[in-house]
Amino acid sequence: MDKVNIVGVILTPLMKICHPKGDIFHGMKKSDNGYVGFGEVYFSTIRSDEIKGWNRHKRMTMNLIVPVGKVAFLVYDGRQKSSSKGNYFKVELSPDNYQRLTIPPDLWYAFKGKRSGLNLIMDLADIEHDPDEIERLDLEKIAYNLNSV
Amino acid sequence: MDKVNIVGVILTPLMKICHPKGDIFHGMKKSDNGYVGFGEVYFSTIRSDEIKGWNRHKRMTMNLIVPVGKVAFLVYDGRQKSSSKGNYFKVELSPDNYQRLTIPPDLWYAFKGKRSGLNLIMDLADIEHDPDEIERLDLEKIAYNLNSV
Repeated sequence: MDKVNIVGVILTPLMKICHPKGDIFHGMKKSDNGYVGFGEVYFSTIRSDEIKGWNRHKRMTMNLIVPVGKVAFLVYDGRQKSSSKGNYFKVELSPDNYQRLTIPPDLWYAFKGKRSGLNLIMDLADIEHDPDEIERLDLEKIAYNLNSV
Repeated sequence: MDKVNIVGVILTPLMKICHPKGDIFHGMKKSDNGYVGFGEVYFSTIRSDEIKGWNRHKRMTMNLIVPVGKVAFLVYDGRQKSSSKGNYFKVELSPDNYQRLTIPPDLWYAFKGKRSGLNLIMDLADIEHDPDEIERLDLEKIAYNLNSV
């Protein structure tokens, strides 16, 4: 398992259940670690080599799953009082590395499409979409070589 | 919109938001019609021309979305006291017919994969998986020509 070096970020391996008529993929149960409530579930897609970010939520906890394609996620801890302040965490999620990534509020994140086909992300969020709780920064404003992601 | 002829079944058109780096697909908000609580979210897949069913949940309300591929759903109302008893409802969901299908408890359902590639179903369920609340019937036990689905 990838070592998580940012306080509050959780990476949880998920089950895939084989079935001759079509497999079943676990997502999240309300009793799971990282679940803090239901507000909305939605899908994002990210084209190959495109990067969305940096974004930061003031209130939302995200639970991210990649059932199709491959997506690299990068998280940056800029929280003043965090013991992991200044750390970056990177993970590539896909059906082959089928894990759930929990990102609590107040952390910067960006993500990049890694496959030429569909890269599909499901986000289970504890609040409904609210543009007022999202902050954005241009990619170059946080020092990290995103081309290497 | 497809006309729903079974009491309690809801079909809700969903938004797709175009974005140059990758589109966004709505799923479900807690304030949406058909939301009755969060228990679990998971994915099912169904191979082309395969049929899963008949299944019936004693307690679970399902909210079904097809972000990839195409899936035909068939619902049968066998509830003794239902004003729509005996009715069948069929709908094909896909990114091109992007709607959410809400199936309350006590209805039989089956579903069939309609594309040769991946057919992906997301279910937002109001309870966690519990094998004791699922009933199953062989496909031929409910009179319907499933080959026509």
